[in-house]
Amino acid sequence: MASGTDDDREIAALRAELSQTRRSTVPALEEILYTAMPVLDRGFIRVVDYMGNDGAVVQAARVSYGRGTRKVSEDRGLIHYLMRHRHSTPFEMCEIKFHVKLPIFVARQWIRHRTANVNEYSARYSILDREFYLPAPADLAAQSAANRQGRGEIVEGAEAAHVLDLLREDSLRQYAHYTEMLNEGEDGAPADPQRRGLARELARMSLTLNFYTQWYWKIDLYNLMHFLSLRADPHAQYEIRAYAEVMLDVLRRWLPVCHEAFLQHRLHAVTLSAAALAAVKEMLAGKAVTQASSGLSKREWRELCAALGLPEA
Amino acid sequence: MASGTDDDREIAALRAELSQTRRSTVPALEEILYTAMPVLDRGFIRVVDYMGNDGAVVQAARVSYGRGTRKVSEDRGLIHYLMRHRHSTPFEMCEIKFHVKLPIFVARQWIRHRTANVNEYSARYSILDREFYLPAPADLAAQSAANRQGRGEIVEGAEAAHVLDLLREDSLRQYAHYTEMLNEGEDGAPADPQRRGLARELARMSLTLNFYTQWYWKIDLYNLMHFLSLRADPHAQYEIRAYAEVMLDVLRRWLPVCHEAFLQHRLHAVTLSAAALAAVKEMLAGKAVTQASSGLSKREWRELCAALGLPEA
Amino acid sequence: MASGTDDDREIAALRAELSQTRRSTVPALEEILYTAMPVLDRGFIRVVDYMGNDGAVVQAARVSYGRGTRKVSEDRGLIHYLMRHRHSTPFEMCEIKFHVKLPIFVARQWIRHRTANVNEYSARYSILDREFYLPAPADLAAQSAANRQGRGEIVEGAEAAHVLDLLREDSLRQYAHYTEMLNEGEDGAPADPQRRGLARELARMSLTLNFYTQWYWKIDLYNLMHFLSLRADPHAQYEIRAYAEVMLDVLRRWLPVCHEAFLQHRLHAVTLSAAALAAVKEMLAGKAVTQASSGLSKREWRELCAALGLPEA
Amino acid sequence: MASGTDDDREIAALRAELSQTRRSTVPALEEILYTAMPVLDRGFIRVVDYMGNDGAVVQAARVSYGRGTRKVSEDRGLIHYLMRHRHSTPFEMCEIKFHVKLPIFVARQWIRHRTANVNEYSARYSILDREFYLPAPADLAAQSAANRQGRGEIVEGAEAAHVLDLLREDSLRQYAHYTEMLNEGEDGAPADPQRRGLARELARMSLTLNFYTQWYWKIDLYNLMHFLSLRADPHAQYEIRAYAEVMLDVLRRWLPVCHEAFLQHRLHAVTLSAAALAAVKEMLAGKAVTQASSGLSKREWRELCAALGLPEA
Repeated sequence: MASGTDDDREIAALRAELSQTRRSTVPALEEILYTAMPVLDRGFIRVVDYMGNDGAVVQAARVSYGRGTRKVSEDRGLIHYLMRHRHSTPFEMCEIKFHVKLPIFVARQWIRHRTANVNEYSARYSILDREFYLPAPADLAAQSAANRQGRGEIVEGAEAAHVLDLLREDSLRQYAHYTEMLNEGEDGAPADPQRRGLARELARMSLTLNFYTQWYWKIDLYNLMHFLSLRADPHAQYEIRAYAEVMLDVLRRWLPVCHEAFLQHRLHAVTLSAAALAAVKEMLAGKAVTQASSGLSKREWRELCAALGLPEA
Repeated sequence: MASGTDDDREIAALRAELSQTRRSTVPALEEILYTAMPVLDRGFIRVVDYMGNDGAVVQAARVSYGRGTRKVSEDRGLIHYLMRHRHSTPFEMCEIKFHVKLPIFVARQWIRHRTANVNEYSARYSILDREFYLPAPADLAAQSAANRQGRGEIVEGAEAAHVLDLLREDSLRQYAHYTEMLNEGEDGAPADPQRRGLARELARMSLTLNFYTQWYWKIDLYNLMHFLSLRADPHAQYEIRAYAEVMLDVLRRWLPVCHEAFLQHRLHAVTLSAAALAAVKEMLAGKAVTQASSGLSKREWRELCAALGLPEA
Repeated sequence: MASGTDDDREIAALRAELSQTRRSTVPALEEILYTAMPVLDRGFIRVVDYMGNDGAVVQAARVSYGRGTRKVSEDRGLIHYLMRHRHSTPFEMCEIKFHVKLPIFVARQWIRHRTANVNEYSARYSILDREFYLPAPADLAAQSAANRQGRGEIVEGAEAAHVLDLLREDSLRQYAHYTEMLNEGEDGAPADPQRRGLARELARMSLTLNFYTQWYWKIDLYNLMHFLSLRADPHAQYEIRAYAEVMLDVLRRWLPVCHEAFLQHRLHAVTLSAAALAAVKEMLAGKAVTQASSGLSKREWRELCAALGLPEA
Repeated sequence: MASGTDDDREIAALRAELSQTRRSTVPALEEILYTAMPVLDRGFIRVVDYMGNDGAVVQAARVSYGRGTRKVSEDRGLIHYLMRHRHSTPFEMCEIKFHVKLPIFVARQWIRHRTANVNEYSARYSILDREFYLPAPADLAAQSAANRQGRGEIVEGAEAAHVLDLLREDSLRQYAHYTEMLNEGEDGAPADPQRRGLARELARMSLTLNFYTQWYWKIDLYNLMHFLSLRADPHAQYEIRAYAEVMLDVLRRWLPVCHEAFLQHRLHAVTLSAAALAAVKEMLAGKAVTQASSGLSKREWRELCAALGLPEA
């Protein structure tokens, strides 16, 4: 796997090699190409390849709109316009490929985004490394009382120490049982010649969900932004958000104008339902509006007040 | 989850309710609708809904080909023709929805088929049951020596007993640690009032990959057949093949003509590469052909001989 | 094609046939099943099959959220919640199949929605009917001066009459040339025995884009709503909007709760960018906000004022 | 559009600009980057961007198979193996973007491949050029008598001249009517100040299906090969095959090993159904096999004999 000394040398060699190309390039992204950016305790994200720059979005949009848009003021305005009106196809014209190392339970959330290309390390064919995720103490959250999908207070003190001990000891024991069942020696011969050893595809089932896996993940810009709008959101689980935040920063380097428009019109935007819009109009007309008078559910009313910076009462 | 007494009663109630419809129906599939068909030790597959019958494939094909095909002899011939020539769109006109209970490591393979709709039980929101997969002794295979992707001999005797003990004890211990970390009592209050309890989305990471999850999985016929062509194949891991075989039988009930054509032109068909085809032509012309003279790789030659029932020498 | 007497009889026969099913059914949709609902001058939409009802969305969501949501008040609230938070997978659990007859230029817009299954009448295999679209006088719009993508005033009087004459005569002439080039007689023999006749796949190129084609189109609810959010929008071209509006009405019959939630949280909702949200907050705090002070582009400001019912100045 | 002098100068400028990159590059493809390769009478294909080389396929496969495949002899063998066994994900790791100019009736076939990204020139926003496809005399095929989906003999002499005259005159007339209805002058003012002019989105419906459109089309290698397996096939319509053949040549430059494996295991391969395989086995065992004894349909038997180079009797 890509964590050892060999791999560092391999990456350095890749980074040292420069070629000439007629394709559009993005120097700020080239700077970090192939470099492993750490995430969580042992994970990483590396950009392995990319296609296109901010100009590629504009170029594709202008094919669609043809002569008609020759007079459109400038590229930045066009990208903001396309983002605001949720155009999709021009943003599909850029593509990026990541190499990611991530815990299996994070991979299970991640893979639900189906519009990407994936090659995952196969534990049917190969043996997983002894690498598992342990949360940092500050990330040991309790179940939220208010919200089934969020985290609550931090678990601290003796309870935290106990949880971390359990996770560490269990991971180590399960890995030991995994290798014991495999019974594979260094040279391919059985470690214990008295035993056959269990097939890799079976032995893997004894590992816990915090073990690390890795994959190549390739996606177009439109679908990447969709992924980020869900996974860089405060409602996403912290562990996947940690990856999304690194990718947001990659997006900023790669396509600064798209990044800016994405923050403006997607990540930090707010959608008002028909009823919420009616409530806002009433407020602007100076009328007193309450949850009851608005017709909104309690939860939507609470979210609306939070978005508008108003007290809930 | 769907394994308790409540669910059996719920399923019986669903099965008892009959409605009238103008849609095409398939009595042989209605017979087993909603019934849980067991797979592995604690898994199941249930057909929850379906759209279309063999006639729906023909109907769609005739829209495409219009008047032109009015004279085509009969539906069975048309379905075989479409299957043989790898037409895709008429087979997309049927749809089926399954409820599946399956071990997490099987779910991880399964989900790589991206052209389906999935709703999985969420261990972020809910607590998983104490249900895990233990292979039957006859399925405890060793790693294949010849083939990295297959299983070899069966692990037996003391080694088998030890492996099963490890898997059982580890699963039980990990589930105990999971509930201990959660610290949730029956009534929603903490089991141990001195502790906060860890968030569900974190505690789940201590479970092993043989724990069962479940999902609703909806797919069109074309993509179902693609799934089955890979997962009902002898090269697929036994545990996912067990599910594929139940689904093959569902396909036989649902669309008997498509099922027959699928076996004939996909599942039991063989593809000859350009070089393999040339070798077969030479053989038919009475010439002696060897691996060396054929230009095939050793592996392809071996596979060709196996397919044709010829000795490899 | 489906416009003649034969087809009406075929549809009546289909409608008369009732079967029993254990699947969930929707009586309000069964009422119109197979019936051709007219669109434009010669087009139609027919619902040919469907899977699921409002309950199927809830059922799938509850699999995802498991025990955790047992207490959620009721189904309507859950569907609104899922819609508001842009959940996708539960809405993918319903599926519908349409038979649509539509002008080729409309089909060209429509097909850009890639997440559907399509079987189109093939003019390679078959001969197209002499059926073409002529706009009603009230739909003969001029190019908008303000907006490249909209229509402006109505073309009237002599100009309108001339346009309609051109469209009608050209369509008739092109169809005559099409059949002349085909040279196919009623009985399959050449109409003119002196000529071979041109292949259908070539002759079709002489038809104009207002000729009607038809297809079977099958899509899940989530993607149907995405289609409708774009095509039932006032910015969509009138001709495709006419189809979207019929489908909106089908949605209302099929899934009344999803339909209501879709109007509330998607079709009639408004998204505020980060800067627009800031402007609204300032307005609510009683400050005077102008386009210049808001930092919004002129176009976004204009759209914001329109959404909030404010004067632009 | 991209046919004028300006565009040639723009392309030359793009080609002249060289940048440095750390990404993998393919010199043989860089040679032709941006250059318009002519197809049909006025169409073209240009490669606008690409991601990956043969090595990227191997790299992705090795992530999947991990350590397990370190010993696999060499890259070429691995690529052939992956292609032969219809692995998909490693081939999804390369991506290519084309700019294509093509007749509308070809675009209508092409767009049925849904797994690609497309930005098409919009005739809602912009005015189409006066460019239409006229077949070369050698491509003026008659309808095949034997096969509904193929072409037959060439239409010749007076009939051919008449067909070409019709196509040319009709195209010119329809374009004249199109611009007349649009009534747009050079400067944006109406050509005839007495008339409003018809909206572009409506006027376009009077154009015939042989008019040229253009688009950006971006696709991954796996789906490109699927497209080529269908469209570079002799059963594909000549006009789309002309584009597929240029793309095949692009594939050869871009990924020579994948190209070779694709020809070997896909484009020139043959699939034998279960019954056809049984027949071949009997032939190899020296038995006399006939269509009747084989159980194959007449059509499948004919195709088998053709594939094996055997007489049909």
